[in-house]
Amino acid sequence: MAESTGLNEACGVFGCVATGNWPTDLDVPHTIYLGLIGLQHRGQESAGIVTSMGNKNSRYKIKKGMGMVNGIFHEEELLKLRGNLGIGHTRYSTLGASDTSNVQPFVVETLHGLIAVAHNGELTNAKSLKTKLLKHGVGLSTGTDSELITQLLTHTPECGEPHGANWIGRIKRIMSETVISYSLVIMHDDKIYAVRDPYGNRPLCLGKLLPATAFAGKKEVDKDDLDGWVVSSESCCFNSVGARYYREVLPGEVVELSKEGVKSVYIAPRPNDTPPAMCIFEYVYFARPDSIFEGQMVYTVRQRCGRQLAKEAPVDVDIVSTVPESATPAALAYAKQLGIPYGEVFCKNRYVGRTFIQPNMRLRQLGVAKKFGPISENIKGKRIVLIDDSIVRGVTMIPIVKLLRAEGAKEVHLRIASPPIKHPCYMGINIPTTQELIANKISMDKLAEYFDADSLQYLTVEGLKHAVQQGIKDDENDRVGHCVACLTGQYPVKIDW
Amino acid sequence: MAESTGLNEACGVFGCVATGNWPTDLDVPHTIYLGLIGLQHRGQESAGIVTSMGNKNSRYKIKKGMGMVNGIFHEEELLKLRGNLGIGHTRYSTLGASDTSNVQPFVVETLHGLIAVAHNGELTNAKSLKTKLLKHGVGLSTGTDSELITQLLTHTPECGEPHGANWIGRIKRIMSETVISYSLVIMHDDKIYAVRDPYGNRPLCLGKLLPATAFAGKKEVDKDDLDGWVVSSESCCFNSVGARYYREVLPGEVVELSKEGVKSVYIAPRPNDTPPAMCIFEYVYFARPDSIFEGQMVYTVRQRCGRQLAKEAPVDVDIVSTVPESATPAALAYAKQLGIPYGEVFCKNRYVGRTFIQPNMRLRQLGVAKKFGPISENIKGKRIVLIDDSIVRGVTMIPIVKLLRAEGAKEVHLRIASPPIKHPCYMGINIPTTQELIANKISMDKLAEYFDADSLQYLTVEGLKHAVQQGIKDDENDRVGHCVACLTGQYPVKIDW
Amino acid sequence: MAESTGLNEACGVFGCVATGNWPTDLDVPHTIYLGLIGLQHRGQESAGIVTSMGNKNSRYKIKKGMGMVNGIFHEEELLKLRGNLGIGHTRYSTLGASDTSNVQPFVVETLHGLIAVAHNGELTNAKSLKTKLLKHGVGLSTGTDSELITQLLTHTPECGEPHGANWIGRIKRIMSETVISYSLVIMHDDKIYAVRDPYGNRPLCLGKLLPATAFAGKKEVDKDDLDGWVVSSESCCFNSVGARYYREVLPGEVVELSKEGVKSVYIAPRPNDTPPAMCIFEYVYFARPDSIFEGQMVYTVRQRCGRQLAKEAPVDVDIVSTVPESATPAALAYAKQLGIPYGEVFCKNRYVGRTFIQPNMRLRQLGVAKKFGPISENIKGKRIVLIDDSIVRGVTMIPIVKLLRAEGAKEVHLRIASPPIKHPCYMGINIPTTQELIANKISMDKLAEYFDADSLQYLTVEGLKHAVQQGIKDDENDRVGHCVACLTGQYPVKIDW
Amino acid sequence: MAESTGLNEACGVFGCVATGNWPTDLDVPHTIYLGLIGLQHRGQESAGIVTSMGNKNSRYKIKKGMGMVNGIFHEEELLKLRGNLGIGHTRYSTLGASDTSNVQPFVVETLHGLIAVAHNGELTNAKSLKTKLLKHGVGLSTGTDSELITQLLTHTPECGEPHGANWIGRIKRIMSETVISYSLVIMHDDKIYAVRDPYGNRPLCLGKLLPATAFAGKKEVDKDDLDGWVVSSESCCFNSVGARYYREVLPGEVVELSKEGVKSVYIAPRPNDTPPAMCIFEYVYFARPDSIFEGQMVYTVRQRCGRQLAKEAPVDVDIVSTVPESATPAALAYAKQLGIPYGEVFCKNRYVGRTFIQPNMRLRQLGVAKKFGPISENIKGKRIVLIDDSIVRGVTMIPIVKLLRAEGAKEVHLRIASPPIKHPCYMGINIPTTQELIANKISMDKLAEYFDADSLQYLTVEGLKHAVQQGIKDDENDRVGHCVACLTGQYPVKIDW
Repeated sequence: MAESTGLNEACGVFGCVATGNWPTDLDVPHTIYLGLIGLQHRGQESAGIVTSMGNKNSRYKIKKGMGMVNGIFHEEELLKLRGNLGIGHTRYSTLGASDTSNVQPFVVETLHGLIAVAHNGELTNAKSLKTKLLKHGVGLSTGTDSELITQLLTHTPECGEPHGANWIGRIKRIMSETVISYSLVIMHDDKIYAVRDPYGNRPLCLGKLLPATAFAGKKEVDKDDLDGWVVSSESCCFNSVGARYYREVLPGEVVELSKEGVKSVYIAPRPNDTPPAMCIFEYVYFARPDSIFEGQMVYTVRQRCGRQLAKEAPVDVDIVSTVPESATPAALAYAKQLGIPYGEVFCKNRYVGRTFIQPNMRLRQLGVAKKFGPISENIKGKRIVLIDDSIVRGVTMIPIVKLLRAEGAKEVHLRIASPPIKHPCYMGINIPTTQELIANKISMDKLAEYFDADSLQYLTVEGLKHAVQQGIKDDENDRVGHCVACLTGQYPVKIDW
Repeated sequence: MAESTGLNEACGVFGCVATGNWPTDLDVPHTIYLGLIGLQHRGQESAGIVTSMGNKNSRYKIKKGMGMVNGIFHEEELLKLRGNLGIGHTRYSTLGASDTSNVQPFVVETLHGLIAVAHNGELTNAKSLKTKLLKHGVGLSTGTDSELITQLLTHTPECGEPHGANWIGRIKRIMSETVISYSLVIMHDDKIYAVRDPYGNRPLCLGKLLPATAFAGKKEVDKDDLDGWVVSSESCCFNSVGARYYREVLPGEVVELSKEGVKSVYIAPRPNDTPPAMCIFEYVYFARPDSIFEGQMVYTVRQRCGRQLAKEAPVDVDIVSTVPESATPAALAYAKQLGIPYGEVFCKNRYVGRTFIQPNMRLRQLGVAKKFGPISENIKGKRIVLIDDSIVRGVTMIPIVKLLRAEGAKEVHLRIASPPIKHPCYMGINIPTTQELIANKISMDKLAEYFDADSLQYLTVEGLKHAVQQGIKDDENDRVGHCVACLTGQYPVKIDW
Repeated sequence: MAESTGLNEACGVFGCVATGNWPTDLDVPHTIYLGLIGLQHRGQESAGIVTSMGNKNSRYKIKKGMGMVNGIFHEEELLKLRGNLGIGHTRYSTLGASDTSNVQPFVVETLHGLIAVAHNGELTNAKSLKTKLLKHGVGLSTGTDSELITQLLTHTPECGEPHGANWIGRIKRIMSETVISYSLVIMHDDKIYAVRDPYGNRPLCLGKLLPATAFAGKKEVDKDDLDGWVVSSESCCFNSVGARYYREVLPGEVVELSKEGVKSVYIAPRPNDTPPAMCIFEYVYFARPDSIFEGQMVYTVRQRCGRQLAKEAPVDVDIVSTVPESATPAALAYAKQLGIPYGEVFCKNRYVGRTFIQPNMRLRQLGVAKKFGPISENIKGKRIVLIDDSIVRGVTMIPIVKLLRAEGAKEVHLRIASPPIKHPCYMGINIPTTQELIANKISMDKLAEYFDADSLQYLTVEGLKHAVQQGIKDDENDRVGHCVACLTGQYPVKIDW
Repeated sequence: MAESTGLNEACGVFGCVATGNWPTDLDVPHTIYLGLIGLQHRGQESAGIVTSMGNKNSRYKIKKGMGMVNGIFHEEELLKLRGNLGIGHTRYSTLGASDTSNVQPFVVETLHGLIAVAHNGELTNAKSLKTKLLKHGVGLSTGTDSELITQLLTHTPECGEPHGANWIGRIKRIMSETVISYSLVIMHDDKIYAVRDPYGNRPLCLGKLLPATAFAGKKEVDKDDLDGWVVSSESCCFNSVGARYYREVLPGEVVELSKEGVKSVYIAPRPNDTPPAMCIFEYVYFARPDSIFEGQMVYTVRQRCGRQLAKEAPVDVDIVSTVPESATPAALAYAKQLGIPYGEVFCKNRYVGRTFIQPNMRLRQLGVAKKFGPISENIKGKRIVLIDDSIVRGVTMIPIVKLLRAEGAKEVHLRIASPPIKHPCYMGINIPTTQELIANKISMDKLAEYFDADSLQYLTVEGLKHAVQQGIKDDENDRVGHCVACLTGQYPVKIDW
């Protein structure tokens, strides 16, 4: 239930390179468009696509807009965007910015040609990087970390020219100056660079675009038959562009995509040999359940969270249920683990009305009831445990329990498949201020009462980590670790804020 | 899976009368707006609201538009629509009509003042009614049955004036001239007439608007405290407007809503004492699961369909699943009945892209894959039975089975929680032509093979009827019956087409 | 200066028939589009086009919209409207009607097929016609006279069928029931009927569409080479559609346009042998100066008005000028007649801003100054006479004189090339209420002082009539007469209001 | 007739400072809005407004958009833009840029706070300035000279900090690096800097905002009563914002506007004591006739051009006329000088239709005829001289002469009130390529024949200069000079292109 309460992902990035030359079987702009549709859950404020024919002096074709991917790109625009490679971006709605100057990808002209940059994440040392650029005399126009990265890429420190047109060198320099958090796709000439910060805080993965023959039939695909390569924040969109999951971009890795294929060109070290720190909430809430991180499907992890929760916090009830729909895998697993029937208690109205400045008390009282229709037969006289994935501000939980009570629930127990959120995130997630977090407002032992629930229990931090990490193969060279800063207050790096 | 394959509901109607006078606690236009949001699944092409202060010469305030309810009504429009009563309508997308002349409610001036009419249904004798009006010299501008009803209401037969300003008399006259199918809300002066055809083919029900105090707290509400009354195609929207289910409008009944309350003013007889004939597909597919028809919740009926299907067509598999999300209750019940685990095999992308005139074969091949992400762990190596609520043209089932096979399903069985659709509907449902229906194209014994499934079975007509009717209280005076014409070809009345 | 002060034309009508069959050299929808652009000054609220292939059962193609012609019709719409004949309409902004139900042409289905109707004018006996239809039991949905006409055309009086499919008979019947004011174009099957009321109150004329060869070169055109025929409210648009002026539709005449050519089929008599009564303000203000009425160009008539004004009301000044731009021909002629130089005193800003609810007194004071930039050299120290075509409410004249005074004008005299407007119009012109008319608010001898002018004189009614009528050939059979009701209060017919 | 043939102004700039603090009588955003409406003729592609409360850390309020000023700014936006000072910009449509990233004013954050910049002009040494910035490592995102200026302002050369927060110093540095052409308004903290390049190539002038009492009545205004100060590309908009013309910003001058008033802070020298070089086409065509440059009204200069043309190229005809409407003052003066009557031969349709990809030859042939209705009485049998302000590509002149011939003109002579355009402009004017200019395509002695005219003569360069310069007071310290490069090929500076 994080969605409606302020826990918001910052962005999705996508890139695509065709192995052939236009016109080809692979329609690059269309593929990026479908990729962004598949990443829409990571950002709904705005979106953009930049493509290029990939020659030295190719003009970049740019289309950006406010709103949903569907509303921005129409057939004629996609036709105009034709090219041999390109990158795209979806952005979350943070402020009601009235113009498109903040919409990514950013394109700038540099001494060595055009570059386009799309970024997911938030730089923890943005402040000092910004001061550095301002001192250098660069005027900044958007106030975004992504513009910082773009200008830093073109930046020539101390008026020298240490890297010239060597873009990999320039990327390495940035990675040494800022370590968290960013997943980047950068387009220059005929190449896309996929860059993931040393901590791997935000996800990024690679896929190969199969030829039409491959997904029409079922035969194996020869490597030389590939139509192209994609890079994406999540693998969930691979199915919808005709791509097969290839592998993750590793923490700190720089991968070069071109028509020759993908090539790992660098792996940046982490300071002090600290473990990686992928955001654990990608598993808990942000990612689509059919995405794959660290070799495991998110859906599977959510089921493990539900099973773990059942072990840590069982309850004797008639029915296990959930608030549709992100906590369903956890709820199904919780039910199975305890051998209690799973049933639906709410029907979610897919068409939710505009939130008006409600004209009177009557309609204000209705609140969340607009969204959920109760399934009486599963509520009346029943002892219910409601599984949710997380609680942020707790504002929707109150009317939901009230709705169940009004429909005659005998008992209402709450079980949350993640620990209490208590601390701010400085790495790309839009969390309400610390004071607004319900876990900081109400003491744990008063919380059940606050929601008018018969009992309430969260998953432990250890339980969550166990659920996530038990599925990760513990390679010798690859350590396991996740960022749980919003739960524990222990940040992977010192925050320069 | 009827939704994406052409089985479409025609409309939703809604009406609201305040017990007090403006300004009151009850915001009539806002209430209708929220009611239409709750009926949005019954029609997404266009919507309209008409309100009135309810005095003899009150001007009607009208706002109609193309598209979704949310896109049409903004706060300022709702403020302009203020009134003491009003009606609304949502309409299904049939043709790409480029203007709003077909959008309901229709408002006409008559010799006896203004009337507004909203209609759900389709008249089986529209042709002869139309000829009658044309012969009378009325020019018809929209080609809709709803305009026919509106003009018939104002019509003065044989140039006489048998009913004058007696609108109940006029409604009775129409009910004697056309018996199926219509659920109407008609506004005139300070009254709304709720009218359901003698066969009760389309649903219509009443609700009372509780005062804010009632849903804030939990106390019982005094009858005199009511804020108003609503009439709606379905009860699912009552929760979101702060209304409590009161009762159904009976087949053939005319109910008058005014600030004095609701009053049954007439019950039209059915010819030859035939049984009622509510559309059984309202239970199977169209209605929202939290709506109540004939004393039972639709969700409950769908679960009974699943249970009945398990009895009629069991199968030995590892996992019971469904294509999200309308068949979920049937699938859960099917699984429970057979004691087989229920699990999700698809993650549905909520953000589906525009359907372009696909530029090349590659993207055309992707098809339905854009919408569904497979949950591998529930598919790989598993024997799966997929429950769906209905099959219409069968076009999406093919790629869905292919997707399961591609992910490594060991067996794929299909079970459909309703019988094969074989015949056209003339009573308000947009069904593809008979030739397009898969049940008419492929013989039953070839169908599993056609979908590349290991087996396929439908629920029987008797099984469906039993699942629906076993929950209806068999009152002495109230006979039980449903329209199953699209399954059997036996229509409740002779079709004048 | 009538434009900005509330004297508004009601509508423009246009029709077009191709002599060939689609596909032909003549693009019918494009021709109507260009025709409506040329009639845009007669109505800017909304516009519509209806076309047909012209066969017995041809579907009508309809496109209507709110706003300017340019904003409504785009290339793809015009392509969809392809047909062999069609009619169009532009409508004036009267009320801020929020939907398109009032937009013409109206299309209705009748017992004898489809008809489309476009109307310019206003029926003086609308009230009794409406009562007749309502009594007959027709529900009326738009409140417009044009819907009345459409329903009257389909109407079968006393339930008999006196005319059946005989549309000319039906048109004659309407002309006997209502005599003023209407210019109609009616489409049915392969014909367009052009109908002008017996008084000829609103203009209507015919043109022949020359083949491309004709306006490419200069050669004479063979009659058989014509591409088609057009009918239009004004001839000013003929040039822009490649048509040559043919003749006026006479008062009371019904002309049938088809691919065979034009045919006069009826001339309705005027009651009591009264003279015709074309609206004299079509000459004074409404029409475009390059239109032709009664054998004379409007520009010429306006020059005669200026000359007559110079004779009736000369003044000794340094410069003759005008408020741009409708009074320019009158001003040029006034100057020439008196031998005084003509010069411009105002530069009109073509881009006028939105009228906001002005936030403070400062900006409210600016008023008309936003529109006009003074040309100082023609003002400073000069004695000026300002010629205007008419004064309605007089609100803009005050700041205009103030502007001239502020720029140092020595004397400011006002001469109006038409008499004072004192009475309402019931025949299609939107005039402010009688109380708002400046000629009724301030006595004639106080008016100069009211405007802070040194003198003010209007053209006399006789002078105006003389200026208009001296150019009309006085045929034996054709009497001369014009409606000057708004000036004298003497209406051509009794007003049933 | 330059307008429709490709001679396009690049931009308009506007700035406003209130003397009081918000809330005040002066509504700053509204004033800028009205100012931009008055500068709309200088750019119709896009517009923007930036305002500030003027405190050290005031957030800048920004609203930009594509299209006309009227379409971009609505009342609610202007309310949000409230501030004590602000600047605005209108931009000409050059390319069909699909997003707003090029829309000015530009706002950037610098080490010393926010600055906003609006620019009219084009830098002749843009290329080397750009290289300099790129070498410094600044990524450029818009490809506009205006972004160059903005980044140069924030630039710290050689990594030193020669000017720090001293913005006047920074402006001086820019003026030493680029001398033509720019008129700038720059906002920082509580000040607006108005900057005109040393050659004064683009206009810029100052006005004082009178209190409401001043333009309500007529009394003189005390200096202390001023509501504020404005700076604008042209004075024509002063009337519409309640401002009185104060003076021009001199070539090379930097003026500081603040609530304390206006202060001249610097005058940059011109290299080698060359004369100033204001674009002479501002007089000929671009500027609105009621604007004042160099102490004279543009209208007056255009009349002098007409008079000079009459002296240089008289012709014996019956009527002097013009193509509406920019050449009217020249035509009136030409007529007066020769004692030949002036008359109108064309009525211009204010509502011109969309230019479609014309579907067939017939409509393509119509061309310019759509725009102009001939006034026959002034054409038929007449010897006509048509005065136009300029000819660029000559494409519209052909159909215009044909139209006159078709209406029966006996002779058609052409006189152009400016010399032939033969060379490109590198200083802010969008001129077609040299090859497209008619003066380069057809030899002078063949041109009359090419247009099918009886004779054709242009004003001489000397004649034009005389007409412009005779009205400029020749102060001792202020030399007179204008840029006539597009006529002679002699540019005021060497072009680095």
